[in-house]
Amino acid sequence: MAMYYNEPPLRTERTTVRRLPSRAAYERETVRAILDAALICHLGLVVDGSPRVLPTIHGRDGDTVFVHGSAASRMLRTARGDAEVCLTATIVDGLVLARSAFHHSMNYRSVVVYGRAAALIDPAEKTRALRVISEHVAPGRWEEVRPPSATELKATTVLGLPLVEASAKVRTGAPLDEEDDYDLPVWAGVLPLRMVAGQPTPDPRLAAGIAVSSSIRKRQASTA
Amino acid sequence: MAMYYNEPPLRTERTTVRRLPSRAAYERETVRAILDAALICHLGLVVDGSPRVLPTIHGRDGDTVFVHGSAASRMLRTARGDAEVCLTATIVDGLVLARSAFHHSMNYRSVVVYGRAAALIDPAEKTRALRVISEHVAPGRWEEVRPPSATELKATTVLGLPLVEASAKVRTGAPLDEEDDYDLPVWAGVLPLRMVAGQPTPDPRLAAGIAVSSSIRKRQASTA
Repeated sequence: MAMYYNEPPLRTERTTVRRLPSRAAYERETVRAILDAALICHLGLVVDGSPRVLPTIHGRDGDTVFVHGSAASRMLRTARGDAEVCLTATIVDGLVLARSAFHHSMNYRSVVVYGRAAALIDPAEKTRALRVISEHVAPGRWEEVRPPSATELKATTVLGLPLVEASAKVRTGAPLDEEDDYDLPVWAGVLPLRMVAGQPTPDPRLAAGIAVSSSIRKRQASTA
Repeated sequence: MAMYYNEPPLRTERTTVRRLPSRAAYERETVRAILDAALICHLGLVVDGSPRVLPTIHGRDGDTVFVHGSAASRMLRTARGDAEVCLTATIVDGLVLARSAFHHSMNYRSVVVYGRAAALIDPAEKTRALRVISEHVAPGRWEEVRPPSATELKATTVLGLPLVEASAKVRTGAPLDEEDDYDLPVWAGVLPLRMVAGQPTPDPRLAAGIAVSSSIRKRQASTA
């Protein structure tokens, strides 16, 4: 019988990474950190027996991942039922350039979460979750803007997906070539990639004299 | 009866965008351009009745999208059967910062492709498709490296997904706020985001005197 001292493991039969298991991680902290570092995720559902994958933003609070959308969204109406979802977040960190075509790869961090998502009902809970998503994308922005009205809250579906069954996969470092290939006169290494922010572009309707807000200045600086 | 002068439309019942249909596009050129601009995609499948979404690289040749992986991959073994797949590629272009929390958004380009993927059998066809994927990620690299051996080709599954049923969704430009909110003293606009390459990092085992190859110098410059 397994004993859990603190938290149950996120690893299950289904989340056990089969391909390149050396890249797999099931530690809660690793899974959390990758979800936090990824700007968006892709949400997978089965609709009429067929797979459907849509991009969405998310936010994490403790061991719940929140996603949101229009209350009229077919996708979210399916997801908030008893349907299983798969939420996958991926960060590409670089191109891994080997001496052979076969051993080319990418450095990346990814997380796959399986589960059933519950729709939040309580307006205060919904507001808190929307704030979590907002803080994930642009920390501090929530405090600068008009909060959601009761009507806007009603028009928004917020889903919470518990972080119960998940896995992470991470590749870092140099290419791994066949021993014989190391003698080839081919440049090999890593081309790092990252997402950066450019200059904030004001809304053409912005009133004169309103400077870029603190949250957006910080958001820009954090990726510079 | 519909008549197609050149190409049939990619739009079907299932690919008709319901949420914010003004952002939808079904033109083949738009779909192709977004697939080409996206570095990676997310492939969705139904496995034992549950959705599964994994990140992968891809490449497009005409109206076929290629993905590849280990011949031993469970995911690809499922995908190459008669199973339906959903391939979604998303590029985030910026954060759209409105005056209200509700009207925050993202500028993005995304494509969703539905269909059944066929495994390539012929080694020459497989090699051509792998080259397409390689050229997608790092143009010119294929010519610099050792091509796949017969054994490596056998260990690789390559799937071709026809671009028959697809849609694109694109958001650009400034936030759209409630008329009343334009008077709020809140900075609003867009924070552009893009993927850039850093300095190429040589493999610690790189022999002395081998300069960064032309393809990687160009790849770096193209995002600088």
